[in-house]
Amino acid sequence: MHEPNFYNFNDIEAKEVAPGFFSKLIHTETNTLNFLEVKKGSAIQRHRHVHQQCSFGIEGRFELTVDDVPQVLENGVFAIIPSNVWHSGVALTDCKLIDIFSPVREDYKALGGLVL
Amino acid sequence: MHEPNFYNFNDIEAKEVAPGFFSKLIHTETNTLNFLEVKKGSAIQRHRHVHQQCSFGIEGRFELTVDDVPQVLENGVFAIIPSNVWHSGVALTDCKLIDIFSPVREDYKALGGLVL
Repeated sequence: MHEPNFYNFNDIEAKEVAPGFFSKLIHTETNTLNFLEVKKGSAIQRHRHVHQQCSFGIEGRFELTVDDVPQVLENGVFAIIPSNVWHSGVALTDCKLIDIFSPVREDYKALGGLVL
Repeated sequence: MHEPNFYNFNDIEAKEVAPGFFSKLIHTETNTLNFLEVKKGSAIQRHRHVHQQCSFGIEGRFELTVDDVPQVLENGVFAIIPSNVWHSGVALTDCKLIDIFSPVREDYKALGGLVL
């Protein structure tokens, strides 16, 4: 059991939000946190959104293209994607990433996760 | 070299913000991200602030007390500390944590780090 302020990722169901992209979502008042596991070779097409996005590499290698410049997210590397900037990505290996969106991704709430 | 949207934690100088607490700070438009390494036995006294805080355990064990309830942050565990709620903590082992503050900690900007 956890007190209300504490949570364990093991208690959050992973949803396949795009082929090969498995998300655990937490929506706070101000941010949506997205804990992603991505299967090697899975790709997300070029898109953009009003939300600012910070992406952190935890494990593996993910090629993230921001404003037509491809670079690799890996452990210790993070990217800031400003509001409305186009981006896309492909997993070069199985990988784990964290995305932090600000403000909250209201469109992701239908995908479940924790709403705090 | 990194393109302007990509950053490596190795390029951010760690600052000892309290005895035994070493921070690497990133200030975005909406959040302050704090990558913390804490030496075993180091403690932060009871305090509170207007900023909502999310804290994530990455490595080791950190006893975080929120609203007088002590619990352990460790890998896979996160805590949400609402605005103005009292909290304190002590590192049970050497540990690594991430804190995400919302809105930006203007008071931490004097501590350096990246301002984006």
